[in-house]
Amino acid sequence: MSGVPVTIKDIARMLGISVSTVSRALKDHPDISAETKEKVSETARKLNYRPNALALGLKSSKSKTIGVIIPEIVHFFFSSVISGIEDAAYEAGYNVIVCQTNEMYERETMVARTLLDHRVEGILISVAKTSMKFDHLAMLQDNGIPLVFYDRLCTVIDTDAVIIDDFKGAYMATEHLISVGCHNIVHFAAPENILIGKLRREGYCKALEDNNIPVDPYNIYLCDTMEKVAEKISRILSRKPLPDGIFAVNDSTAIGAIQEIKKAGLRVPEDIAVVGFGNGPHAVISCPTLTTIDQNGYEMGYEATRFLLDRIVKANILVSARKKVFTPSLIIRQSTGRNTQNTRF
Amino acid sequence: MSGVPVTIKDIARMLGISVSTVSRALKDHPDISAETKEKVSETARKLNYRPNALALGLKSSKSKTIGVIIPEIVHFFFSSVISGIEDAAYEAGYNVIVCQTNEMYERETMVARTLLDHRVEGILISVAKTSMKFDHLAMLQDNGIPLVFYDRLCTVIDTDAVIIDDFKGAYMATEHLISVGCHNIVHFAAPENILIGKLRREGYCKALEDNNIPVDPYNIYLCDTMEKVAEKISRILSRKPLPDGIFAVNDSTAIGAIQEIKKAGLRVPEDIAVVGFGNGPHAVISCPTLTTIDQNGYEMGYEATRFLLDRIVKANILVSARKKVFTPSLIIRQSTGRNTQNTRF
Repeated sequence: MSGVPVTIKDIARMLGISVSTVSRALKDHPDISAETKEKVSETARKLNYRPNALALGLKSSKSKTIGVIIPEIVHFFFSSVISGIEDAAYEAGYNVIVCQTNEMYERETMVARTLLDHRVEGILISVAKTSMKFDHLAMLQDNGIPLVFYDRLCTVIDTDAVIIDDFKGAYMATEHLISVGCHNIVHFAAPENILIGKLRREGYCKALEDNNIPVDPYNIYLCDTMEKVAEKISRILSRKPLPDGIFAVNDSTAIGAIQEIKKAGLRVPEDIAVVGFGNGPHAVISCPTLTTIDQNGYEMGYEATRFLLDRIVKANILVSARKKVFTPSLIIRQSTGRNTQNTRF
Repeated sequence: MSGVPVTIKDIARMLGISVSTVSRALKDHPDISAETKEKVSETARKLNYRPNALALGLKSSKSKTIGVIIPEIVHFFFSSVISGIEDAAYEAGYNVIVCQTNEMYERETMVARTLLDHRVEGILISVAKTSMKFDHLAMLQDNGIPLVFYDRLCTVIDTDAVIIDDFKGAYMATEHLISVGCHNIVHFAAPENILIGKLRREGYCKALEDNNIPVDPYNIYLCDTMEKVAEKISRILSRKPLPDGIFAVNDSTAIGAIQEIKKAGLRVPEDIAVVGFGNGPHAVISCPTLTTIDQNGYEMGYEATRFLLDRIVKANILVSARKKVFTPSLIIRQSTGRNTQNTRF
């Protein structure tokens, strides 16, 4: 449903007064009587009229709430994003309500509608893996709700986005493995149709090329969960020569690899060094602890919220789309060598 | 802010037709002309009129949304509760919006107000550790919003609660340590003013007493985070005789203890066996893996939501307060012995 937004014309028509009277009433103009102002504001409320399209003076229809659409709350990364969002929002006097999609397109469309119905003043969204259509986001924009993407964006919707440089993170991870002596590096990859899967694979390939190591397609496995590691590892560990490094697309896959390597009687990092991506709390629980890429989840949430608040305060439509790209950082731990960054053992 | 929802009266007024015509047009009644139906449906779209309100007849003030107040989304336990809540809610055609308190009383009062303003039909809440006053919850009840507690409740508000038997979980954990041969068992406890801290300590004491082991107050340490373990462990590990078991009030404290014991050159479980509480994902990442108490987070969320939906459907005030207490389960892993439940080594 594309829902044409309610305009001051609708209010004027309903009350039988002029558009300019409505406009001035909404701006609390002294020429307009208190009675008319009251009527206008009541009608605006009834019609779900969106103030950010026009007046900034109509306090009574502001919900002072922003909505967050998040794929999976259980992920440490997303829960740190929420912390950053909340801190920025509360600082500015806004409340935050969170809706989870569980990576399902259908729930994403439902929660978009729910947040619109609850009259949030703006929405932060990271799109679900299964979302291929984005009419529900266009609908929000048509209703005058500012949107900002964090972590995952869709290119057909023109607005701000705060992301990390996945290509660079993967490049840093791979180059670190090379710097500790690895030459035969396996990549556990996410599917190509997910942008981060594609970018991290590209970063891995580029780091190999820049270091004159040919990319071996047999070194790239579609493997992004602990369960898939358990399925595939025996094939990898029986290869001759044995791979000497693994760069996994996320921490849990990396930790799954460490557990399986140890089960097979091999050592990490002595036989195979391992790097993950994410720097969640598992990274320091794992034995050995995990070298990984930090994703700046808190900062991402904070910055995305600053963008959104800016769009809420200004006329949304007049703000041209901005993109902020965080550079991730490499966190070196035991899974690539204990006390040294430049040598492997 | 109470935001009056758009009703069929608004549509009727805008089109200059009767309410019953609008109602029948929306229901695709054969007596109404295609032209009128088209006009009505166009106006409904323009005004953002909610069709699911219409599906229920006169229920135009129902938001079909439940609110969840949660202390900390980052905790695995709470995120599994959310999963259970969402599954029960979506099954019943309800949306879920989540607000986090970060364990702060002030935020809890703010989000209670926010959820009321957004016209949720009911609220699930686990109270923040710092909440000692509960006027904001009484206010919700006064406004006719049904409440249900999960995990943490407050006794001054009369409504349903779904909790786990913390006393029993602690009893099971301690008895398990005794069954694998421990006699000198340390308890890492949470503060007494938190109910779960009190109950878990009592369960620990009762299990010792029932097994004719005197409770030694020097074996109880106020220590419920990894950081506190790091501060206190040297004092504990220099004790003679060395304690042979640790029951920690939560998983992360237990895992912190395992890490510190290993750092000190001692073995888990051979020198000191360790049991946690929670069964979060860290438990299987830890080396050795952690024996712990499972809290049934998903089931708790699901059952609490069933209670709430029941209150929403029936007249809330007529439902007398119910309490559901889940019995937790002991999950035996390496930190208390490898392949056996009854002997320690």
